[in-house]
Amino acid sequence: MNIYPNFRFEITTRDTNSSARCGLYHTPHGTIETPNFIFCGTKAAIKGATPEDMRRENTQIILANTYHLMLQPGSKIVKQLGGLHKMMGWSGPMFTDSGGFQIFSLGHGSISNEIKGKTLTPRNKTLLKITEEGAKFRSYIDGSYHLLTPEKSIEIQRDLGADLIVVLDECTPYNVDKNYTKESMRMSHRWALRSLEEFKKGNDYSQALYGIVQGGVYPDLRKESADFINDQNFFAHAIGGCLGAIKDEMYDIVAMVMSSLSKDRPVHLLGIGGIEDILNGVACGIDTFDCVHPTRLARHGGALVKRSLKRAEGDNTTTDHFNLANSRFRTDDTPIDPECECNTCKNFSRGYLHHLLKAKEMLGLQALTVHNVHFMNKFMKSIRDSIENNSFQQERSHWT
Amino acid sequence: MNIYPNFRFEITTRDTNSSARCGLYHTPHGTIETPNFIFCGTKAAIKGATPEDMRRENTQIILANTYHLMLQPGSKIVKQLGGLHKMMGWSGPMFTDSGGFQIFSLGHGSISNEIKGKTLTPRNKTLLKITEEGAKFRSYIDGSYHLLTPEKSIEIQRDLGADLIVVLDECTPYNVDKNYTKESMRMSHRWALRSLEEFKKGNDYSQALYGIVQGGVYPDLRKESADFINDQNFFAHAIGGCLGAIKDEMYDIVAMVMSSLSKDRPVHLLGIGGIEDILNGVACGIDTFDCVHPTRLARHGGALVKRSLKRAEGDNTTTDHFNLANSRFRTDDTPIDPECECNTCKNFSRGYLHHLLKAKEMLGLQALTVHNVHFMNKFMKSIRDSIENNSFQQERSHWT
Repeated sequence: MNIYPNFRFEITTRDTNSSARCGLYHTPHGTIETPNFIFCGTKAAIKGATPEDMRRENTQIILANTYHLMLQPGSKIVKQLGGLHKMMGWSGPMFTDSGGFQIFSLGHGSISNEIKGKTLTPRNKTLLKITEEGAKFRSYIDGSYHLLTPEKSIEIQRDLGADLIVVLDECTPYNVDKNYTKESMRMSHRWALRSLEEFKKGNDYSQALYGIVQGGVYPDLRKESADFINDQNFFAHAIGGCLGAIKDEMYDIVAMVMSSLSKDRPVHLLGIGGIEDILNGVACGIDTFDCVHPTRLARHGGALVKRSLKRAEGDNTTTDHFNLANSRFRTDDTPIDPECECNTCKNFSRGYLHHLLKAKEMLGLQALTVHNVHFMNKFMKSIRDSIENNSFQQERSHWT
Repeated sequence: MNIYPNFRFEITTRDTNSSARCGLYHTPHGTIETPNFIFCGTKAAIKGATPEDMRRENTQIILANTYHLMLQPGSKIVKQLGGLHKMMGWSGPMFTDSGGFQIFSLGHGSISNEIKGKTLTPRNKTLLKITEEGAKFRSYIDGSYHLLTPEKSIEIQRDLGADLIVVLDECTPYNVDKNYTKESMRMSHRWALRSLEEFKKGNDYSQALYGIVQGGVYPDLRKESADFINDQNFFAHAIGGCLGAIKDEMYDIVAMVMSSLSKDRPVHLLGIGGIEDILNGVACGIDTFDCVHPTRLARHGGALVKRSLKRAEGDNTTTDHFNLANSRFRTDDTPIDPECECNTCKNFSRGYLHHLLKAKEMLGLQALTVHNVHFMNKFMKSIRDSIENNSFQQERSHWT
């Protein structure tokens, strides 16, 4: 029985030299062209951009975070205000995560780095206990106690009302051993079944459920997890958990997981948004990505640009952006990128943006956010176009 | 000789029951319908709104502050970036002040209150000395020394390139005696002549110069100042300095000054933006107002609304706004004002705005700014319409 009658994922083109593919992802709030990027509206707002800005810069889908919204304002209030779409004034497709990632990363980002293999920090005390039942934690806002179970996560995500929702899982950090990773993964699988059960009970056909592949950096566990998820009635899959400490390890794990996952369901790579990471993910067959990077970078004065533009200006740093706070932009009356058609590049010079950053004017952060959103959407469109024109390999080289 | 060939102030309607009047104020960057309100873009940016937002919400004119811009980024850099209009992406009329007010209020607002008669605070040490030559002060940014003279203020305002510019004056606080006020006023008059001289020397006909009426709370000094300013070749007049400690005193001074000022030049009331103050000013014949209030209030969670709307909801506080951070708005799914046609009221509920404020999302401040800008523009339009329809007295009662 099709428990997702209002969702359809249509693969329209397959690359001949890689696993890259183009698709049309039909949801009750419209169609997403894939591969695509999902912007983070953590607390039901994109920091630095209005819904209008997002639409004007060609955004097709945004996400909000269950963890933040369950604590503030609370999912019942979001429901009273008409659900996320109505409340935010966003009529396009939306995604919510399960709340798990932030609980385990404890709302401080330290474990986020750890999951990405970067540091070894002790778990913060806001996470109190993980049991078979769920995860107990304290609110970072008022210290109140919460228990997030698989059932509760689905109920909250139902109240929030995004189109695409996700099962609760435990996100294991980099520094845990294989045995912990295995036990955790198996518990996540049991949580996935409970999530699916709860989803089916309240299914009003307005949402589609993602299963998550866990297994850390261990190929046999990733394979076991992919096989398990393939067998369940999920509409789509997400790749979560630790992807290793270095890029090559991540690419190997993603490639390995993708080789095991069902080829007909959409696949989302959680929390990844670097230019090269996206290109590699697309080559492995990933359909959607999300990351705070483009919008967070903007709030730190960074404007995403192609490496080739940086090189043309004699800037040989290997980052993905210009730092507009740099004094070399002080009297520069050209736009961030003369070829960019975003609202910022059409109206503001680098010199003005530099001034706004120095003067701590919020308009500077807004303007850079708009540029970075446009940049990511243009980047994803160029990927889609190149797959359709059978030139994906050439296109990759334009962005790195 | 007409030194302002590209400016014209046309009075189109005079109220029969007051000195209120409607006009068309033609500038090289377009026509301002008067009475009107000038929004503060202090550091060459409206806090919380893009130029696009301002236009969409019917804004006709904005200002920037000479004091802030001479220190950061510096007027020469603004000039290199094409002047304020081009740099900011604002193609409509613009106003700059002389820098005096902020030097004397020392960038901290304490003397701003004092000029408005509210407190008695000692002058901060960033103002070092006032001499016949000008005002010596230290930058609040880097401690560097600056001397602002009448000539320098005109030169800076020429580099900034606003349509409407202002002579340098000394703003006397409330707690100075009549003798100081008189001596200061006479020095301001000498500064006004020097400003005008400098203006004429570099006149390229793209700017119009305002003279400022000083004289504090003393009717004979105000009369002397108005007579002096009337006799000079200014395009327009501004009323500056201390207007008293209480509203009634302010209204008396404004009425008295207006009775002495030339009836054919536009008159600006500096730094005043309360609903009742504007209504009283208009009744005295004031054509333009400016104040940070609407945009600053937004950044503190306040949404401007008519008193009648507050009363209809049982809110009998006498402020001019709803405080959206108040928990009574938590689950309110109606817009700030159901009759408001601003972009915020069309898209966001009070409950969502409450959430955004609580979550410290900048979108909340942006949304309230947009609403307050729209409110002020609608308020000024209703004043103009009522003067044209000979119903200004009735209209006043709708807003208080």
